[in-house]
Amino acid sequence: MEELAYSLNTFYYIMMGALVMWMAAGFTMLEAGLVRKKNTAEIVTKNIGLYSIACTMFMFCGYAALYASAGNGVLPEFTLEWMNTEPGGTGIEGYEDDGTPYAANASDFFFQVVFVATAVSIVSGAVAERMNQWPFFALAAFIAGFVYPVQGYWNWGGGFLSSDYGYADYAGSGTVHLLGASCALAAAIFIGPRIGKYGKETGKFYGLFPKAKTNKLYGSNLPAAALGTFILWLGWFGFNGGSALAMDNAAIANEVANVVMNTNAAAAGGVIACLVVARVFFKKTNLIYALNGAIGGLVAITASPATPTGLEATMIGACGGLLCYGSLVAYEQFFKVDDPVGAISAHGTAGVFGIMVVPMTNDGATFAGQATGALAIAAWGFVLTFAFLYLLNFVAAVRASDEIQKKGLDAEEIGVEAYPEF
Amino acid sequence: MEELAYSLNTFYYIMMGALVMWMAAGFTMLEAGLVRKKNTAEIVTKNIGLYSIACTMFMFCGYAALYASAGNGVLPEFTLEWMNTEPGGTGIEGYEDDGTPYAANASDFFFQVVFVATAVSIVSGAVAERMNQWPFFALAAFIAGFVYPVQGYWNWGGGFLSSDYGYADYAGSGTVHLLGASCALAAAIFIGPRIGKYGKETGKFYGLFPKAKTNKLYGSNLPAAALGTFILWLGWFGFNGGSALAMDNAAIANEVANVVMNTNAAAAGGVIACLVVARVFFKKTNLIYALNGAIGGLVAITASPATPTGLEATMIGACGGLLCYGSLVAYEQFFKVDDPVGAISAHGTAGVFGIMVVPMTNDGATFAGQATGALAIAAWGFVLTFAFLYLLNFVAAVRASDEIQKKGLDAEEIGVEAYPEF
Amino acid sequence: MEELAYSLNTFYYIMMGALVMWMAAGFTMLEAGLVRKKNTAEIVTKNIGLYSIACTMFMFCGYAALYASAGNGVLPEFTLEWMNTEPGGTGIEGYEDDGTPYAANASDFFFQVVFVATAVSIVSGAVAERMNQWPFFALAAFIAGFVYPVQGYWNWGGGFLSSDYGYADYAGSGTVHLLGASCALAAAIFIGPRIGKYGKETGKFYGLFPKAKTNKLYGSNLPAAALGTFILWLGWFGFNGGSALAMDNAAIANEVANVVMNTNAAAAGGVIACLVVARVFFKKTNLIYALNGAIGGLVAITASPATPTGLEATMIGACGGLLCYGSLVAYEQFFKVDDPVGAISAHGTAGVFGIMVVPMTNDGATFAGQATGALAIAAWGFVLTFAFLYLLNFVAAVRASDEIQKKGLDAEEIGVEAYPEF
Repeated sequence: MEELAYSLNTFYYIMMGALVMWMAAGFTMLEAGLVRKKNTAEIVTKNIGLYSIACTMFMFCGYAALYASAGNGVLPEFTLEWMNTEPGGTGIEGYEDDGTPYAANASDFFFQVVFVATAVSIVSGAVAERMNQWPFFALAAFIAGFVYPVQGYWNWGGGFLSSDYGYADYAGSGTVHLLGASCALAAAIFIGPRIGKYGKETGKFYGLFPKAKTNKLYGSNLPAAALGTFILWLGWFGFNGGSALAMDNAAIANEVANVVMNTNAAAAGGVIACLVVARVFFKKTNLIYALNGAIGGLVAITASPATPTGLEATMIGACGGLLCYGSLVAYEQFFKVDDPVGAISAHGTAGVFGIMVVPMTNDGATFAGQATGALAIAAWGFVLTFAFLYLLNFVAAVRASDEIQKKGLDAEEIGVEAYPEF
Repeated sequence: MEELAYSLNTFYYIMMGALVMWMAAGFTMLEAGLVRKKNTAEIVTKNIGLYSIACTMFMFCGYAALYASAGNGVLPEFTLEWMNTEPGGTGIEGYEDDGTPYAANASDFFFQVVFVATAVSIVSGAVAERMNQWPFFALAAFIAGFVYPVQGYWNWGGGFLSSDYGYADYAGSGTVHLLGASCALAAAIFIGPRIGKYGKETGKFYGLFPKAKTNKLYGSNLPAAALGTFILWLGWFGFNGGSALAMDNAAIANEVANVVMNTNAAAAGGVIACLVVARVFFKKTNLIYALNGAIGGLVAITASPATPTGLEATMIGACGGLLCYGSLVAYEQFFKVDDPVGAISAHGTAGVFGIMVVPMTNDGATFAGQATGALAIAAWGFVLTFAFLYLLNFVAAVRASDEIQKKGLDAEEIGVEAYPEF
Repeated sequence: MEELAYSLNTFYYIMMGALVMWMAAGFTMLEAGLVRKKNTAEIVTKNIGLYSIACTMFMFCGYAALYASAGNGVLPEFTLEWMNTEPGGTGIEGYEDDGTPYAANASDFFFQVVFVATAVSIVSGAVAERMNQWPFFALAAFIAGFVYPVQGYWNWGGGFLSSDYGYADYAGSGTVHLLGASCALAAAIFIGPRIGKYGKETGKFYGLFPKAKTNKLYGSNLPAAALGTFILWLGWFGFNGGSALAMDNAAIANEVANVVMNTNAAAAGGVIACLVVARVFFKKTNLIYALNGAIGGLVAITASPATPTGLEATMIGACGGLLCYGSLVAYEQFFKVDDPVGAISAHGTAGVFGIMVVPMTNDGATFAGQATGALAIAAWGFVLTFAFLYLLNFVAAVRASDEIQKKGLDAEEIGVEAYPEF
């Protein structure tokens, strides 16, 4: 391979990785905008902290595990060799089949590490306003250093979902978003809802779901949340566009271009669908559903952004957005799972849909393969997170006390207020 | 053409398009910062909605019309073929004269579609705080699907302004910004000023302009507006820099570099000029004029960013900024056109100046050609928008009632407040 | 050199420059978030103004001086030739040793000019809430047009630090950050602390440092400050990544990739170190220290981001973050230097550390050479800034009166409030 192609691929990786890193700012602003004032500094601290922890843990062991040269298909071999080698020493992605590198190894690490941070970011939103900070950081380290790399290896590192399994997940509707959402669901259930979110139980829907008054706890800064959504939208061009992993011939350049065009179309479809439904059924176009519609659309297209036409991508995004919308209502009203920012719906429900719709436009995937992958990822994330929090809770209280929640986590954990003069 | 050049051009298109998409966030934050609190969630919803609608409408019919293979010079042929083809099937820009493609077609679509959204964004600011949401979305669809593509075709698609006409507009001072501003002016006049903006008419200036007390309705979040301006500034590197449409030889690489350098210089010139004038004549350097100075400078350089020297670009930007400043005062005080964010001045007045200054640095343009183009574009945008709103108003009220304006559009249209705890 | 390599290098410069330009938004949001409400519009105006002034001054004379073809090693030759030539006429960086250009000259100018703005941005934070606007703009012009280019020439333009001196500073821990911090320190000392920051002096620590009650003057918008930090983090990929100055062969592509990976790792290290120390010693994880930790880490890695391993980069960042933390406390409590945003510590203290740690991973540097460079830069920035302000103060009051400070600078200088409805 000529050097200039290597340079172009490396540059492409770096720019795409920079866009994905920017998503960390997007999650931060989205979550800061959707929590109440008194918990804002805390959620911001969690976000910058989790990004930093994810980057560091992935360097220590996650990257080497994800691209392990050895493993049994389910568990990769864990090593700490990354610590001891030259930068970029152990990567695998940066090489073609015959061993020729096609991009700088460090650029591959950079691109992969920002994905990990994205997965962990999903969790912070779902447990906002009630999870103590340091238990959260411990969970972040656990996910970035163990939970994510193992199942990343299944799909991208040579594990059981990699080859001939009928599972296809281009940029990680499953491997990143559903995984994050599964961890988030486990954490949200373990911790329980925020104080004041639900009234007393007064019966059951269908004999199953607790009936209780649901209180709206409004986000404090919707322009910040909208900015966060736009940041995520922009960052997603890197998230999906970079997942072609190279850019140096006409075929793959076309692929990257289709991916970016479709990613944009899907987000637009998600927004429009949610705006229309909100208008028709609820008479008001609640901005929060439009924002979640964009994210739901983006998550849905992520599993196969290269294969649909623009119109198909718009429709996939619209369905992803609507499923996110319905799921938001269902989790809040029926299941009584409190998810302040809607992360479980946007990344989990839309993520499952994204995975299951792949076979319609991509011959390399089967419905059975996709379903198995989704189930395996969801179970892995849910069970490990729940178990981790269960054990952690013996060491340090995971849930902030009712008193602290009433006062706000900023006062207890951070010591400064987000908006002291307002 | 070798494949690597094709890859580089495609990558360049994608990155430049991503920067332009980012301008959607810029307009959102600018407008969110310049309206009052009670209308903030609504303007944000309009912005994310219009971007989504513009992207979808342009996919359905706009792109095919803009690059129509047939047309009479004024009206291109409209088709829906884009819906039925493979992604990237119908573009024309992605090909060299002999038919060789020089970049992925989908990357060209992606770059073009974000331009459309920019044009529509200009309108939302001018009608802020008083236009009902769904009539606005209808207007957005009309502009993106018909108004913009037709006149885009005049200049970029082979229409009457394309060749040998003496009209040159590199990245769209006219085709994007003046068009958007003309639509915005028609809409602002049709809808009338916000309730409370002007007092009772007490006479006429020069027997022409209504004399009435002008009330300042202050924007609620200036740091958000400043962030929006910085976002636009950054995005403009893609807007102008991407308009070279390729990057794969030394001459065009030099051109792109000049464009980016000059774009930056013009914005800086616009800011400095407005700061100095504000200081000298009004003693205080009102931040809002500095922000509009940057935008005015950027709009002014857009018609010919490749040909001036750095110093000329700075001067063009300074003039654009000052004209925007003067125009802001004139529209508000004399013409009594209420434009809450200054969009008509920043994009329209500075846009006309940008078009008219092209012949000074670019031999391919004549003053007569430029003037004809500007007039044609302005008339097209103004007349069609006015007519559309006139007809639409029979179906659905375009203007929010005084009562709703007093209560704020958030309460009526969105159902949640932007800053509920503040 | 083949044309495509030239194109790739130019494109790389442009994208990296765009990321650095984006840092102007980062500084703006960081500073807007860390000052009080009543001074917010003013600090935002200063930031957009200084960026514009820096770009224009550097065009007039700074760029030609920095890359002067003549000079005595300490003072370069100043010319205004840039004004009179075609865009990109005088640069030197865009050429290989044999005179072949390797990137468009205008792209080099664009990349360099955004560096100057970064240096000046550092000053605005340290003098926030008490320096009058136009004296500040005069200082900005002086730094961008004279102070910065001269010492930039020492390191990057062929001056005495350039060759065989044992001084190595890859992207400007010294040339940009320490220089900015030195100017900031001189200005902060000259102007004195904000009214209300310190109580009456009641004695001396160790007979040296004034003992006085230190009042916390809390920043008004921490999410904005966090957004600013994320913007800086992203922009730093361009700042350091672009400093390889080319991208067109495998060796330099690897270098750029390492630089970006290490830049990210260092910021993460800075955040984690500050979070842990805050938790362990102060029980609360004050967000502001985490943000400064990120910046301290980024500044520290900037002097040699290509040579460390990922682990070393994380450690360098952690040390940079902690030194910034300690320095913040020392300046505020002991030295009674009031620095509202912590700029002197983040860019100065961490900058010196970054310079001094270079010899550990880079053979081209010696401790003596690094120390000399750091001293020379710091002295140059400090002395010239102090002298300039001393002289300027005869013409126009540099410090806002106590009365104006109490009322807020927005009312006096800007005429509009940042958040009028809050």
